[in-house]
Amino acid sequence: MPQISIERIEQDIIAIAGFGLQEGGRGVYRQGFGKADMEARKWLGRTFDDLGLLHRMDGAGNVIGRYGAADRPAIAIGSHLDSVPAAGMFDGVLGVVAGLEVVRTMKENGIEPDFPIEVIGTSEEEGRFGGMLGAQAMTGHVTREWLETACDERGYALKDAMAEAGLDVLDALHAYRRPEELRAFLELHIEQGPILEAERKTIGVVEGISGVFKWNCRLIGKAGHAGTAPMNMRSDAFMGIADFAHEIERIIDEEGSDKSRITIGHVALKPGFPHTVPGEAEFTIVGRDLDEDVMLGLANACRRVLSSIARKHKLKFEYEEMSWLKPAFCDVGIASMIEKKARELEYDYMVMASGAGHDVQFFCGHTRAGLIFVPSVGGISHAPDEWTHWSDIERGAQLLFETALELACETVPA
Amino acid sequence: MPQISIERIEQDIIAIAGFGLQEGGRGVYRQGFGKADMEARKWLGRTFDDLGLLHRMDGAGNVIGRYGAADRPAIAIGSHLDSVPAAGMFDGVLGVVAGLEVVRTMKENGIEPDFPIEVIGTSEEEGRFGGMLGAQAMTGHVTREWLETACDERGYALKDAMAEAGLDVLDALHAYRRPEELRAFLELHIEQGPILEAERKTIGVVEGISGVFKWNCRLIGKAGHAGTAPMNMRSDAFMGIADFAHEIERIIDEEGSDKSRITIGHVALKPGFPHTVPGEAEFTIVGRDLDEDVMLGLANACRRVLSSIARKHKLKFEYEEMSWLKPAFCDVGIASMIEKKARELEYDYMVMASGAGHDVQFFCGHTRAGLIFVPSVGGISHAPDEWTHWSDIERGAQLLFETALELACETVPA
Repeated sequence: MPQISIERIEQDIIAIAGFGLQEGGRGVYRQGFGKADMEARKWLGRTFDDLGLLHRMDGAGNVIGRYGAADRPAIAIGSHLDSVPAAGMFDGVLGVVAGLEVVRTMKENGIEPDFPIEVIGTSEEEGRFGGMLGAQAMTGHVTREWLETACDERGYALKDAMAEAGLDVLDALHAYRRPEELRAFLELHIEQGPILEAERKTIGVVEGISGVFKWNCRLIGKAGHAGTAPMNMRSDAFMGIADFAHEIERIIDEEGSDKSRITIGHVALKPGFPHTVPGEAEFTIVGRDLDEDVMLGLANACRRVLSSIARKHKLKFEYEEMSWLKPAFCDVGIASMIEKKARELEYDYMVMASGAGHDVQFFCGHTRAGLIFVPSVGGISHAPDEWTHWSDIERGAQLLFETALELACETVPA
Repeated sequence: MPQISIERIEQDIIAIAGFGLQEGGRGVYRQGFGKADMEARKWLGRTFDDLGLLHRMDGAGNVIGRYGAADRPAIAIGSHLDSVPAAGMFDGVLGVVAGLEVVRTMKENGIEPDFPIEVIGTSEEEGRFGGMLGAQAMTGHVTREWLETACDERGYALKDAMAEAGLDVLDALHAYRRPEELRAFLELHIEQGPILEAERKTIGVVEGISGVFKWNCRLIGKAGHAGTAPMNMRSDAFMGIADFAHEIERIIDEEGSDKSRITIGHVALKPGFPHTVPGEAEFTIVGRDLDEDVMLGLANACRRVLSSIARKHKLKFEYEEMSWLKPAFCDVGIASMIEKKARELEYDYMVMASGAGHDVQFFCGHTRAGLIFVPSVGGISHAPDEWTHWSDIERGAQLLFETALELACETVPA
C-alpha cells in the first residue's frame, strides 16, 4: 500500500499558516473573504498548478482542484481555509492539505483512479457571516435573500466583503453541485475536543454531527435592595438561573445521552449592581445531541424545569428559540469502510459523534459523506495553542488516503 | 399631648420633591452637591428663617437649624436631602421634614425644651462619591486624603462638585461635632424594604444597622466549545457560581440569622458566548447581618463552600474583600423609649434591624442614636414609585416628636 508523506503535509500546513499569522503568539487571523483568506486560496490554486491539476474558484469562493476523469462523479475531499480570529493552524487546513496529499500520493505511485478526486478548500466555514457559505452553496443551502442581507458582527455585509475579494455574491448560487456529480465527500478534521485524548485513541470515526438548539431566555423578578429585602421575600432572577443550572446534570441523566450537552454560555443581570437583588436575568441555553428525539426531550425538560423554578422564585420565564438544527448523519457504508481500514491499520480508534459543526454536515444526505477526527491536544481549538501531534495527523491522512482510494478505484491497486 | 400635623409634613415633602423632579414619571434627580440638591438646602435655610431658627450650612454642606439654648447639648433630628437618580420623594426627606415638624409642634404648643433641638439636612448620604459625607464629617469619619481624591462614577471629583456648589472640600474637616455638643441623634426614615408591610406593622423600632461585607470573586476554569466538550470534562466557571448560589439558603440556615442576607448582584462570564463553555466568571457577594460574629460565620462558610465547589469543578477560586463594615447599634435606652411610646400610642410596631445604611449609623457610639422606620409600600425605594402612606408617616412623626420631647425636657410638659 502506498504511504502518504507527513513531511509534505507539515510543509503545506506551515505554508498556509503563513497567511494571516500574527506575531507574538497571537495566532492566525484568516477570516472569510479577508485578505489573508484570499491569499491562501491563491496559494491553493498555485499548488494545484504545480500538481498539474485543473482547478477553479467557484462563485462561493470554494477552490476546487480535480485529478482524474472529467465525466465521472468525483470523490470530493475538502475542508475550509478560513479561520476564526486568533486561530491555530490545523482547524480546516488539515482537511485541505490531506486532500492534496491523497492526490500527490496517487500520482507518485502511478495510480489513475476510475473516479476523479476533487480537493476542495471551502469558503467561510467559521460563520463570520452566520453560516458555512462554501459548503451550503455547493449543496443548495443558500438563498438569494440571505446572500444579499448577511452581515458580520460589525455590520459589514457579505456582499461587500465578497466584492472586495473580487467575487459577486450572487454567483454563490451557481456553486451548486448536483448529487450525480459527486460519489462521496470526505473530510479529515481535528476533533477540537478532549474525547480522543482522554480515551487514548488516535482516530475518531464520526457517525454524525449533533443537532443543536439555541434559546434566548429571560427570568423576570423584582429588583430590590440587597440589605432590606429578606431572603424569603425576594424574586431574585439570578437564583432562578442558578437553580436551573444545578438541574442540568439531572436533566441529562434523565433525558439525555453521553452525547448530550447543555451549556449556559451567556448571562446578563439587570441592574447588575452588587448591592441590588437582580430583578432580571438574560441567558442563553445551547443544547445538543446526535438524536433529534433526545434533543426534544432535553428541550422539553429545560422548559418544564425553568417553568417550575420560575414559580418557586416568583419569577416570569420567557424564551425564544433562536435556532433548531437537526443532527446530520454520515453515510453508514463509508463509516464502516473507515472503521474497517482503521482496524486493518491497527490504529486505536473509536466511533463518535461530532459536537461541533463541519463542512461535511451539508453533504450528509446530499452525497455519501464521511468524517475522520484526529486528536486535539488538551481538547484545545480556536486558539493559538491548538495542536495535533504529527504522528496522529499521519495516521489520519493515511486512513483518508486508503478510504479515498477504495472509493475511487473499481479495483483497488495492489 | 401635642399632635404633629401631617398636612404640614405633606406640604414640605412635596415642596422638596420639586427640587430635581423630572417630568413623565421619571422621578427625582437630586444627587449630592448638584444644582437641585443645593436648591433644596437653600429651601431648608429659608424654612428655618420662617420658623425663626438660627441656622447655618457647615463645611460638609449639612444644613443645621437650632431651636433652644445655645450652650447645652442638642437633640439632633436629621436625615439627608440628596437623592439617588430616579428617586422617590420620601427617602431622606422624611427625616428632615419630620424634624421641622417636631420644632413647629413645640413652638405652637409653647414648649421651650431644656435641651435644644437641632434639625439637620445632611449632605451626600447616597454615596455619589462613595460615602455618607455629611454624617461622616459630623462624626469624624472623613480624612483629608479621601476628601481630596473622592470621585463619582464618571470620575468627577468631590472637590470640584463642592467648589461648583460654593464649598471648599477641606472645610468638611471643620464640620465635626464633639460628642458633648450632642445629647442624642434621632432619625425617622422609610424602611425601603418589605418587612413592615408583610408583618402589617406601622412602625419599626430599629435596634441597629447590619454590617456588610462585599467580595469581588473570580472562578477560573477553561473555556471550551459547547459542542465538543463533554459535560464531565468541563471546567465550567458558571456552573461553579450556580452551585454556590444553590448553597446560599443552606449557608444562612446553618450560619445565619433571620437578619442575614447574601446576594449575588453582579455576574460577568468570559468569553460570554452562547456556544462557549464559560472559562471565567467574575461575580460579587454581598453579605450582611446585625451580628459581626454571624457575619464572620457567613463569610467563612462562603469561602469554604466556594473552595470546595471550585475543587469539584476543577476551577480556581480567588476573591478580594472590598469592604467590611461592622454593624452599628442604636442606643438601647432610646430604642426602649421609642418602643414604650409606640406601645402607649397603641401603634403596631416591631423591633427590627436595618439592612440598608443610614446617616444615623455614624452617630451610633458617637452619641445616643435612635432610628424609627415607617413602611414602604411594596418594599419599593430608590425608584419613582417609592411610596409611604401618609397615615404611617403621621404615626412615625408623632412618635419622633414624643421621643424628642422626652429627651429634650427634664420634665415632660403635661
